Amino acid sequence: MTASRSQQDDGDHVTLAVAEVYELALKVLLKAGLSNEQANPVAEVITAGERDECFSHGLYRLPGCVETIQSPRFKPDAVPEIVETSTAVIHADAAYGYSLLAFERALPVLEKKAKAAGVCVLAINNCFHFSALWPEIEAITDRNLAALAMTPSHSWVAPAGGTKPVLGTNPIAFGWPRGEKRPYVFDFATSAIARGDIALHKIRGEPIPAGWAVDAEGKSTTDPAQALSGAMLTFGGYKGSALSTMIELLAGPLIGDMTSLQSMEFDGGVKAAPCHGELIIAFDPEILGGSTGDADHAGAEALFAAFTEQGARMPSQRRYEARERSTKEGVSVPRGLYDRVQQLL
Amino acid sequence: MTASRSQQDDGDHVTLAVAEVYELALKVLLKAGLSNEQANPVAEVITAGERDECFSHGLYRLPGCVETIQSPRFKPDAVPEIVETSTAVIHADAAYGYSLLAFERALPVLEKKAKAAGVCVLAINNCFHFSALWPEIEAITDRNLAALAMTPSHSWVAPAGGTKPVLGTNPIAFGWPRGEKRPYVFDFATSAIARGDIALHKIRGEPIPAGWAVDAEGKSTTDPAQALSGAMLTFGGYKGSALSTMIELLAGPLIGDMTSLQSMEFDGGVKAAPCHGELIIAFDPEILGGSTGDADHAGAEALFAAFTEQGARMPSQRRYEARERSTKEGVSVPRGLYDRVQQLL
Repeated sequence: MTASRSQQDDGDHVTLAVAEVYELALKVLLKAGLSNEQANPVAEVITAGERDECFSHGLYRLPGCVETIQSPRFKPDAVPEIVETSTAVIHADAAYGYSLLAFERALPVLEKKAKAAGVCVLAINNCFHFSALWPEIEAITDRNLAALAMTPSHSWVAPAGGTKPVLGTNPIAFGWPRGEKRPYVFDFATSAIARGDIALHKIRGEPIPAGWAVDAEGKSTTDPAQALSGAMLTFGGYKGSALSTMIELLAGPLIGDMTSLQSMEFDGGVKAAPCHGELIIAFDPEILGGSTGDADHAGAEALFAAFTEQGARMPSQRRYEARERSTKEGVSVPRGLYDRVQQLL
Repeated sequence: MTASRSQQDDGDHVTLAVAEVYELALKVLLKAGLSNEQANPVAEVITAGERDECFSHGLYRLPGCVETIQSPRFKPDAVPEIVETSTAVIHADAAYGYSLLAFERALPVLEKKAKAAGVCVLAINNCFHFSALWPEIEAITDRNLAALAMTPSHSWVAPAGGTKPVLGTNPIAFGWPRGEKRPYVFDFATSAIARGDIALHKIRGEPIPAGWAVDAEGKSTTDPAQALSGAMLTFGGYKGSALSTMIELLAGPLIGDMTSLQSMEFDGGVKAAPCHGELIIAFDPEILGGSTGDADHAGAEALFAAFTEQGARMPSQRRYEARERSTKEGVSVPRGLYDRVQQLL
């Protein structure tokens, strides 16, 4: 397995072993001035994104991470503070560093409390956030807990019936532990599409489908540039809009942190990663299973079987397949992106 | 205000005061054999549905309620048992009666625990369920708590990428307390449309829009009868399907209760209301607000203002307007429905 030990270059692409992605990301982040403790979990999620072929959360994110690290309000050596607020609530103050170190530090406490009380809410405050939520969800399902996570972003998305941006792209993610099997995990933006996908259409000079966005006048548009200066729309009409609003409230004002509107104002035009809060809820199937002693894992498995038997795909299936492949064969990084990352060293 | 004291009949419609709807519903439920304690909260939510012009959860539901009461596995005199499982978890065993009495009994405990721990999960088990979730959500926001509720139903809905029914219509509801103002509340089915709406189209002989359902062969249909014997679809494509799956897991296997598939099997073709579990999470803004002392209610209000200032409607606005109207003028019940209800006495 050459790929797992060294780089291969076919001109258009550079093949890197998963461990090499991590080393490269870490080196870039440290060079940018991020503390070693902050940099480790950031390099890990970027590696996980590249490995699982979630390219918009892989090495592609590194230039933006570097810009955020060097933005005025970011604290590159932030040390999170974990407070056990109650038997079932933890507040993790990320102290204006990335969310990820705060999560890492809070995770053992989250596990302990969820397994004692049956449920535990982890509120991460004052965190710069750029990462997918599924790596955190998987870290929780690895501990045999179910998990729900959500976070606002910047006010780029119009509510149903409106035309002006108020909501964030507001991702929500969920995980269910399946013992020896890979967990059931989903993670999606409540916007019709990720903002990065509109940006990619602009770079490629391609129109976007109707229904993704409106222009600055509130009219439906297929022009990605006009979409980016107008407002994105939510998925699922008024239902998606309501769900996005719930995410604003639970992961914002509820935990004494910013809405997407407030976070956009806090950014002040710098265009750093959004700074705000994140809400994570961990559920213990053993305690919540009640008098039956444990959750009905067989019932859950029968549900999943009813999906796959009719050919419906499980949400993370593609990601898990990519993970198998990348672990064996390494990842294939486009030459342009590879060069851009090298310039950060 | 004649309407608030006595019935008016214009031939097509009968006008009833809100209190008269309650008395009528209660009388029908008691006649059907439901215990007084079980019947009270059921009559209350049916009245609330009629009052708020959520007609599919109003008097329209009474004939189905009567059928459920008389179905073999329903216990008309069920006495719920409330167990304080942990500092942050309550199990309420509805003992095969309706969910509503179990909720009513558990509510003071839910409030107490949520205000002590910051969060509390209420798992209602073994309940027959037909009601909208917003009356429960409003009961919780009335106590200055935020609330999330969800429940499976019967397996009527195909997952994204599939054509066979596996998921329930799986409603999710959320509420945010706003002090003296009416709370922010949404309550929607994760199916493209409520099953009752398809049934109403069938009664009226009207076609349904494409995208709501497929027929028994898995082909898109606009025939409500074929839709009811085929499979409904979720809202929002794969995202709505994922959300619906989360509801199955959290309000089913997690709390040791049935998925929509299991509930359908339990029903055994009787076509009673679905019997399964319900999950409710209450969040205390004071504890979760963290070091700032309380949640950022001003931030939430600024978010709502950004909706209404651009003419976007708040989710429960129509319902609250109907409530004002009905309280003053009474409700107008179609003659056919009124007669059908009278036949149950």
